[in-house]
Amino acid sequence: MPQHFLLSIENGIATVSLDRPERKNPLTFDSYAELRDWFRGLVYDDTVKAVIFAPNGGNFSSGGDVHDIIGPLTRMSMKELLAFTRMTGDLVKAMIGCGKPIIAAVDGVCAGAGAIIAMASDLRVATPSAKTAFLFNRVGLAGCDMGACAILPRIIGQGRAAELLYLGRAMTAEEGYNWGFFNRVVEPDQLMATAGEFARRIAEGPNFANMMTKTMLAQEWSMGLEQAIEAEAQAQAICMQGQDFTRAYEAFVKKEKPVFQGD
Amino acid sequence: MPQHFLLSIENGIATVSLDRPERKNPLTFDSYAELRDWFRGLVYDDTVKAVIFAPNGGNFSSGGDVHDIIGPLTRMSMKELLAFTRMTGDLVKAMIGCGKPIIAAVDGVCAGAGAIIAMASDLRVATPSAKTAFLFNRVGLAGCDMGACAILPRIIGQGRAAELLYLGRAMTAEEGYNWGFFNRVVEPDQLMATAGEFARRIAEGPNFANMMTKTMLAQEWSMGLEQAIEAEAQAQAICMQGQDFTRAYEAFVKKEKPVFQGD
Amino acid sequence: MPQHFLLSIENGIATVSLDRPERKNPLTFDSYAELRDWFRGLVYDDTVKAVIFAPNGGNFSSGGDVHDIIGPLTRMSMKELLAFTRMTGDLVKAMIGCGKPIIAAVDGVCAGAGAIIAMASDLRVATPSAKTAFLFNRVGLAGCDMGACAILPRIIGQGRAAELLYLGRAMTAEEGYNWGFFNRVVEPDQLMATAGEFARRIAEGPNFANMMTKTMLAQEWSMGLEQAIEAEAQAQAICMQGQDFTRAYEAFVKKEKPVFQGD
Repeated sequence: MPQHFLLSIENGIATVSLDRPERKNPLTFDSYAELRDWFRGLVYDDTVKAVIFAPNGGNFSSGGDVHDIIGPLTRMSMKELLAFTRMTGDLVKAMIGCGKPIIAAVDGVCAGAGAIIAMASDLRVATPSAKTAFLFNRVGLAGCDMGACAILPRIIGQGRAAELLYLGRAMTAEEGYNWGFFNRVVEPDQLMATAGEFARRIAEGPNFANMMTKTMLAQEWSMGLEQAIEAEAQAQAICMQGQDFTRAYEAFVKKEKPVFQGD
Repeated sequence: MPQHFLLSIENGIATVSLDRPERKNPLTFDSYAELRDWFRGLVYDDTVKAVIFAPNGGNFSSGGDVHDIIGPLTRMSMKELLAFTRMTGDLVKAMIGCGKPIIAAVDGVCAGAGAIIAMASDLRVATPSAKTAFLFNRVGLAGCDMGACAILPRIIGQGRAAELLYLGRAMTAEEGYNWGFFNRVVEPDQLMATAGEFARRIAEGPNFANMMTKTMLAQEWSMGLEQAIEAEAQAQAICMQGQDFTRAYEAFVKKEKPVFQGD
Repeated sequence: MPQHFLLSIENGIATVSLDRPERKNPLTFDSYAELRDWFRGLVYDDTVKAVIFAPNGGNFSSGGDVHDIIGPLTRMSMKELLAFTRMTGDLVKAMIGCGKPIIAAVDGVCAGAGAIIAMASDLRVATPSAKTAFLFNRVGLAGCDMGACAILPRIIGQGRAAELLYLGRAMTAEEGYNWGFFNRVVEPDQLMATAGEFARRIAEGPNFANMMTKTMLAQEWSMGLEQAIEAEAQAQAICMQGQDFTRAYEAFVKKEKPVFQGD
């Protein structure tokens, strides 16, 4: 079990959260590294079919801890700084590459690297009080952190992303919903149920095919249109030799609901 | 005339629809191939200036036929499967490459490959009851079908596209409008008139230049910004030597409406 | 001082506008070239921290002047045409590459190259009467002008961009806001104050880091996801050795507001 974040696994759904609620769940060097390693390992673990990244104590994450991370960074060499920024980027790469859809359940503060974790998830649910701030600019840094200048514009549009990244201001839950960042906004007592329902439906789906969907959403990011269409022809042909495709067909013929097994 | 879909051409506007309304217009191997070939041929046919992809009997298309397509696919070799997925991808490539703007008029069921045809069109009009479902995941397949993982995120945003592709649920007409998938939502008795009005305005426009707009929207898909700007400088310089540009200038000087001729 | 547009600089904020309000501020060969050169020079001028592109006399810009530009273009050789379209594209490249966030304050007519200037800015504020028209198609040209087919879809989505580019119709301020083109819509007497407030907040921010944000938003345009994340790791490591990062940390520890100095 991880030492620096909370993890529980039930019915094929892993629920992850940071665990310093009294400080709004900041990230530390240790939790960054351990999350990166856990998501990397997830590629090989087919007992987990979907992941929920959950809040803790009413907040998602306040991002890199000011004392544990920002202070030390101001005294590091370039070599050490690059090792750090690559580690944080590696967490995003590991989340994108893990093969399992990730649902961020966002409540309260969701700032800095916390906002990035929400952004790097596949689906996002929020409470009305969620405040998502890509606030790098407010600590003297650029908006280009852990993929934000590439990913955020594709979710909410280039102009809205520019505003958030240049001002560092918080995006409200309502803005996030209207702009396509959040898939749902629900009351706090419904947050985990809504995220759980997304996770359950995904986990009951064809998991090999879902992994391929996740792979191709990333893989086609910068492909030409014709190349993307050919890449999908190949990826979907692979899925058509999977057993879940046959299961769905046979269930349809019998007018039953298919039971997918992920192969 | 085509054997496996309906086609009429009037005033430079081709209206295409599938023709098994009693089964909500599924695609078959034959209609896929014939549509692909027809859109490929359209490149060379300047009498057609715009295309409407219309519903039939209150539905757009239910996608690949379960009995005619899905059943056989479950028994095919990988070589045969790849030939099939490439044929479906080639339909999308042919639509994108045909040089004529395509307006999808969506009513009722618009599912699977039907949703892809709407997505691969340039403009989309819907009725309030249109149900657009990228439902590949529900038949055990991945969302990466015929370009969906590349194209859908660019139309509605990465987060909303992910939800539709992972859940396979239908997008309502209202969602489609709010998210930028549909350009208009109108009552059923106004659907063809609205699509027709789009088509008429486009057909009366400068058709060579419209072809170049369509070409460059696809061509610049994955270009760097500087490369895209240079590519547009070249493409627009070509259009500036066209006669329609001179016609527009001369009409403006005479305070008349330009009559474009597409050269 | 420029001869063909208005310029004032105050508190690190440059305000630029075209200066033929009686004709709704069309662009000319001279103002194109001079704007291009001014934005190119801006790279080396750190006394300017943000730019407002302002309207004049109730209009933003009517685009390329019909008599001064379009007439001559209809009589040019291909070599001359390409020189012109490259000059206009170079203005967009210079705006994107200038290192300073640009806020377009849009009132009244914003058409053709005027719409492009708004599009190529980083943030956009409008009045309710702003009419933004990518009207190239109405003068017999293609929508691929100065980067529109690449940039506009990333701001408002591929389907909405296609409608504007194929029809040449004006986008209303309300549409522009709902679609993410405009960051704010405010009454005319609040337009310059709102743009000024964006500019002031940006100018008070960490300017070296803001330059890096602007650089990377463009740089990552067509990178793969993994490459974009690595590029951001490098860019942010550079910013972490900047003094503004240390200033922010020290201010935080003292519970003060950081005063950034742009290094």
